[in-house]
Amino acid sequence: MRTQVVIVGGGPSGMLLGQLLFRQGIETVVLERRSKAHVLSRIRAGILESGFCRLMREAGVGERMDREGFVHEGTVISRNDDEFGIDFRALTGETVLVYGQTEVTRDLYAAREATGGAIVHGVEGVQIHGADSDRPHVTYVLDGTEHRIDCDVIAGCDGFHGITRQTIPGTVRREYEKVYPFGWLGILSETPPVHDELIYASSDRGFALCSMRNAHLSRYYVQCPLADRPEDWSDAAFWTELKSRIPARHAEALVTGPSIEKSIAPLRSFVSEPMRWGRLFLCGDAAHIVPPTGAKGLNTAASDVHYLYHGLVAHFRDGESEGLDRYSETALARVWKAERFSWSMTTLLHHFPDQTAFDLRIQAAELDYLASSRAAQEALAQNYVGLPY
Amino acid sequence: MRTQVVIVGGGPSGMLLGQLLFRQGIETVVLERRSKAHVLSRIRAGILESGFCRLMREAGVGERMDREGFVHEGTVISRNDDEFGIDFRALTGETVLVYGQTEVTRDLYAAREATGGAIVHGVEGVQIHGADSDRPHVTYVLDGTEHRIDCDVIAGCDGFHGITRQTIPGTVRREYEKVYPFGWLGILSETPPVHDELIYASSDRGFALCSMRNAHLSRYYVQCPLADRPEDWSDAAFWTELKSRIPARHAEALVTGPSIEKSIAPLRSFVSEPMRWGRLFLCGDAAHIVPPTGAKGLNTAASDVHYLYHGLVAHFRDGESEGLDRYSETALARVWKAERFSWSMTTLLHHFPDQTAFDLRIQAAELDYLASSRAAQEALAQNYVGLPY
Repeated sequence: MRTQVVIVGGGPSGMLLGQLLFRQGIETVVLERRSKAHVLSRIRAGILESGFCRLMREAGVGERMDREGFVHEGTVISRNDDEFGIDFRALTGETVLVYGQTEVTRDLYAAREATGGAIVHGVEGVQIHGADSDRPHVTYVLDGTEHRIDCDVIAGCDGFHGITRQTIPGTVRREYEKVYPFGWLGILSETPPVHDELIYASSDRGFALCSMRNAHLSRYYVQCPLADRPEDWSDAAFWTELKSRIPARHAEALVTGPSIEKSIAPLRSFVSEPMRWGRLFLCGDAAHIVPPTGAKGLNTAASDVHYLYHGLVAHFRDGESEGLDRYSETALARVWKAERFSWSMTTLLHHFPDQTAFDLRIQAAELDYLASSRAAQEALAQNYVGLPY
Repeated sequence: MRTQVVIVGGGPSGMLLGQLLFRQGIETVVLERRSKAHVLSRIRAGILESGFCRLMREAGVGERMDREGFVHEGTVISRNDDEFGIDFRALTGETVLVYGQTEVTRDLYAAREATGGAIVHGVEGVQIHGADSDRPHVTYVLDGTEHRIDCDVIAGCDGFHGITRQTIPGTVRREYEKVYPFGWLGILSETPPVHDELIYASSDRGFALCSMRNAHLSRYYVQCPLADRPEDWSDAAFWTELKSRIPARHAEALVTGPSIEKSIAPLRSFVSEPMRWGRLFLCGDAAHIVPPTGAKGLNTAASDVHYLYHGLVAHFRDGESEGLDRYSETALARVWKAERFSWSMTTLLHHFPDQTAFDLRIQAAELDYLASSRAAQEALAQNYVGLPY
């Protein structure tokens, strides 16, 4: 078997890349370890930058997103009972869209199926061969049989735990990491969101986030110790803790209900360089992770997809290699800005176990300054809506 | 002896306050531990915010400052050989003035002497009595004899090592502190400045600052380990180190010469709250210290002077106590913003011994982002030229 691009990983990055390339007449095969049902059941991010939305439209899969997504023109930041707004539209002319990653993935699967794109689920033992040669190939096992695909390029879209990054020799790879000393306990609940914008809540008891998927589905988080387990938290305990961290007027308005999902995610910053090795190009979580504060994970994956897509089109259609040659450098420049923003939002809003009394005051002063300075708000907003590709 | 306001400390804060009050007909006595010659020999900051300059003019001592000071419309920030400018005037409409603290103090002494204001040098054992009563008094020893001044108010302008802060009971005082794991080795040299604006230089070898007092007098600094002593550094070693930290084009243009002063200052952030206790009001370094990155020390003292000056005028002239009653809260709100800015500039530009590879990349990303974002530059500039009083 032969194709132009093997895409390892059928999450939103790989599927978006595949659909963009399909529209340009470039052939791809997507290899996914899990079943479609499993991929579609993952609950992840829900805030899309304008750049991400433009890519979805360019891939021909923006219709339901534009119809069902909620435009958010700003967000709320609070500290205990004080709050202020960041008006994205007034500050930057841009907005973000609330539309769950699950829905994005669903739309991408529907489009790939409608266009007959190849996708193989349940693959095991994926291996990349000759990535540093002109004739790479990928092998995998399906139902006990080994298969081989020859290709021109491999896109590594298989996430943080995937195998594509590991294919790059340790002598070439440089990894940068910060592990935060807390996690996010999140619940999904079939209740109306407490507010029509997100609330990023800093408090003496730690961070909380009021988010949503739609008008009847809320997503809430509270910062928690890494040692906690979801089963340690009853729904009642969660709601009590959440209420104690958000401004009283919102706590009073909060509609609670049973959780339909409850989980704890650790917070990590991670970057692996380079993002290209020969014919292998890493995209998204395969190369970098951000803590979720500021919603840069999926959006930064999308900027990788953007650069790789344009590089591949120039390569296959025009024989121009510059975009691919510069991919790692170009993608990483934006990745590090997203890493910086996610780290700074996390640092600004969370309680850290080793914070001194001075550190706590500086953190409060940062929020006071942000509340009072249009320039500081504009800097935050331009990162939140997404720096230009 | 009796006066309205005893000012403890004859540095720039105390002298500026005294001169402002004199112009409003409020009587003061300044008590200073050191000789006038000693006070005037101190080499300190040299960058004045517009607000500071306005206070100097209001005190009737702005003439030489306006004639001899150098207006700086921006500054340069570099990282190794890359550099970019921050255009204060374009970003904020404001500028800063380069005019040494030594010159500020000289002008204030000349004015006080010309107007016959009381100033007592060489005082020892200053003690404040009854600060929490309606009838405070101050005692001190001069040439072996104890003296007493009854007063309405005491202004504590006696710096970080002064006694006024210590007068506030430990049960009332809360102190916040951060000590940085490095110092600044500074030299003064009778050479033309390497550039007509300051250069804040971040480099793989650590931070450096190219500053100046005038067209023939340069002030340069390099970050150094706290254990270093000035005598460990020959002039030649200093110039070599400085050149290695600033962009090559500036290193090549640098005119070196013998140092006429060489010293090492530790870097510290410190705030003591409250800034008012009864009839005692702390100003400047007596209540707070910032690391010198960003030049907020003298300027933040000036904002305290501004608030206290207006509070005292309202009190003595109109019998209004609100300004004095709110002094601590009002002054501290701005102090913490200056603390935040100085901490953030220090963190952005220095090498820290415990920085991980990730931390170093984030620091580089912060500078990349600052170089590329007008909003981020505006936020920096508005702090550098001085937040409004």
